[in-house]
Amino acid sequence: MSIADLSSRVALGIDIGGTNTKFGVVNHRGEVLEKGGMRTDAYEKVEYFIDALYEQVQPLMEKFGTVANFDGIGVGMPNGNYYKGTAEHAPNLPWKGVIPFGELMKAKFGLNCTVTNDANAAALGEMLFGAARGMKNFIMITLGTGVGSGIVANGNLIYGHDGFAGELGHTIVKPGGRKHWSTGSEGSLEAYASATGIAITAKKMRAEFPASMLNKYPEDAINSKTVFECASKGDPIAIEVFRYTGQKLGEALANFVMFSSPEAILLFGGVIKAGDFILKPAKLHMERNLFPIFRDKVKLVFSELSEADAAILGASALVWEK
Amino acid sequence: MSIADLSSRVALGIDIGGTNTKFGVVNHRGEVLEKGGMRTDAYEKVEYFIDALYEQVQPLMEKFGTVANFDGIGVGMPNGNYYKGTAEHAPNLPWKGVIPFGELMKAKFGLNCTVTNDANAAALGEMLFGAARGMKNFIMITLGTGVGSGIVANGNLIYGHDGFAGELGHTIVKPGGRKHWSTGSEGSLEAYASATGIAITAKKMRAEFPASMLNKYPEDAINSKTVFECASKGDPIAIEVFRYTGQKLGEALANFVMFSSPEAILLFGGVIKAGDFILKPAKLHMERNLFPIFRDKVKLVFSELSEADAAILGASALVWEK
Repeated sequence: MSIADLSSRVALGIDIGGTNTKFGVVNHRGEVLEKGGMRTDAYEKVEYFIDALYEQVQPLMEKFGTVANFDGIGVGMPNGNYYKGTAEHAPNLPWKGVIPFGELMKAKFGLNCTVTNDANAAALGEMLFGAARGMKNFIMITLGTGVGSGIVANGNLIYGHDGFAGELGHTIVKPGGRKHWSTGSEGSLEAYASATGIAITAKKMRAEFPASMLNKYPEDAINSKTVFECASKGDPIAIEVFRYTGQKLGEALANFVMFSSPEAILLFGGVIKAGDFILKPAKLHMERNLFPIFRDKVKLVFSELSEADAAILGASALVWEK
Repeated sequence: MSIADLSSRVALGIDIGGTNTKFGVVNHRGEVLEKGGMRTDAYEKVEYFIDALYEQVQPLMEKFGTVANFDGIGVGMPNGNYYKGTAEHAPNLPWKGVIPFGELMKAKFGLNCTVTNDANAAALGEMLFGAARGMKNFIMITLGTGVGSGIVANGNLIYGHDGFAGELGHTIVKPGGRKHWSTGSEGSLEAYASATGIAITAKKMRAEFPASMLNKYPEDAINSKTVFECASKGDPIAIEVFRYTGQKLGEALANFVMFSSPEAILLFGGVIKAGDFILKPAKLHMERNLFPIFRDKVKLVFSELSEADAAILGASALVWEK
C-alpha cells in the first residue's frame, strides 16, 4: 500500500457511555476528521440503538467514499470484551446480560468491529497519539462517574485470560470501608476516587463542618465541580475532600506500581480538573506506600488528549492495533 | 540442530536465597540431572561466594563435557533484575547495594548468565514444567519466609519498565495495619501471609487465649509448622491463625485478579503445607471481594513442582525462555 493510499485510510471510533455516545472518523495520524454524538440511554433495545447510530453515522461515512475506505470500527464501552466482542452485565448500560455488540455492528455496517472496555480504549489512544507515546509499560486510570483502568505491559494491553483484566476501580483500598452504591463491595477505589465518591465524601464532610462553603449549595449541586470551586476559593473542607480522595487514590496507585512497575501512571477524566488538589496528595501517598526500589521512579501525569476526542481516538486505535 | 543434539543441551539453574543456595544441571525436558547446595550467608563478599560456587559446580558440569554443551546459566535471587543482570538492595542477601551478579558469573564461568527474582523464576518453572503448562495468564505467589510473586500475562513474565515488577508481597492489604519488621510499611501482604507473619499472628493469638495448645511451645518454636501441628489436632486458635492468614491472602488475591484477570493463581512455598486451613478461607475471601464478572473463574491451586527442584528448574528455564 502506498503512502497516499495509507493516508486515505480511516476508521470509525465509537465511545459508548451509560448516558452519551460519541463517534468520529479518525485517520492514521490520530486526527478526528468528523464527529458527532447521541444519547445511549434513549434506546430500550440494543438493536434500536444500533439502527439509530447507523442513521447518524452513515452521512459522515459517505464523505469518505465507500465503506471499503474504512479499516474497521473500534468500540470502547463499559464491560466491553476484546476477545468476544461482547459487552457483559454492564451496570451502567441500558441493555442487560451479554450483548454480542461486535456482531450486531458488523451485520449492520458491513465492517469488522473490535470491542473493548472504555478505559482500555483510552489507554490505547494515549499510547498511539497521547502522553504514552513510546511507552511500553504504563497504567491509565480514568476518573469519571466511575473509575476505570487500562494496563499496558511489554507494549501490550493486558486483557487477561477472559478479556476483562484491568478493573482497578473495583480493587479494595480500604477493607470494610465505604459500601459501593451499585456493586455492594466495601472500600473499593471507585467508592472514593470517582466523581460519585467525591460527592459522597463532600456531603459527609460538610455535614460535620457547618462553616464550610460547601453548605451554601443545595444537596444535588454537590459534585466534584462545586467542590473544586470551593477549594479554589480556599475552603479548607473542600480542600480536605480532595486531599482525602487523593490519599485513597495514591494508596491504590502504590499497589498498582508494585504489580506491573509502570514507567508512568496517566490520569484522565472529569475528576482531574481538580488538578493539584488531588495530584499532590495522590503522589505523596503513592510514594509513601511504595517498596523502596520503586520510589521516585514513576511519573504521575495527566492525559494529553482532549477529553472530547480521547475516547473516539482510543476506540479507533483498536482497529489499527489489531 | 538435531534432536540428538538438542537432547544433549543442558543449562545450569541456580536459586540463591538469603541463607541457602541450590544449584542443578537441567535438560530441556525439565529433568534435574545433577544437583547440590551450599550456604549463601557464609561469604562476606559476592566474589568469594562466586568462587566457592564455582568450586562446587565445576565437578558437576564436567560430567556433561565442555561448557559448550551448556546453553547458559539462569539465576533466581532476591531483587534480581532481568534487564540489568543485577541484584539490587536485597534486604535478605549478605551483599549490599547493586551487585552486577550476571557479569561476575559470566566472567567466572564463561557462560551467559540471566538473572531474575526468585519468584519470577518459580513462575517460569511452573509455566515450562509445572501446573501452569499451556497457560498464558497466571500469577505465582510464593509463601515462604517472605512473600514473592511472578506474574505472567499474554504468555510473558511482566518485568515492568525497570525489571522489578511483581512485588506483590509488598502491596498493602490493610492500610495502617501491621508494621513490617524490615521495610517499615504498614499492612503489607508479607506482614500477614509469610511464615514470619504467621508466627507473629500465632504469638499474638496465643497470648489472648491461654487455653490454646500453642501455649505449650516455647516462644522461638512458634512457626507455621508448629501452628499446623496444633491446627491438625483441632486447636481452634491455631485454626483461627490460618483462617485469618487466609482471609488477608484472599483479600489481596481479589485485587490481583482484578488487575490481570489470570486463569489461575498458583501458591508455592513452605506455608502451603497448611493446606485447606489456609486455602479455604483464601478462596472464600478472594471470591467475596471480586467484582462479579470475575467470580468462580479463577483456579486457586498449589504448585505441582517439588519444592526441592522448583527453584532450580525455574532458574534454568530462564536460559531457554530468553
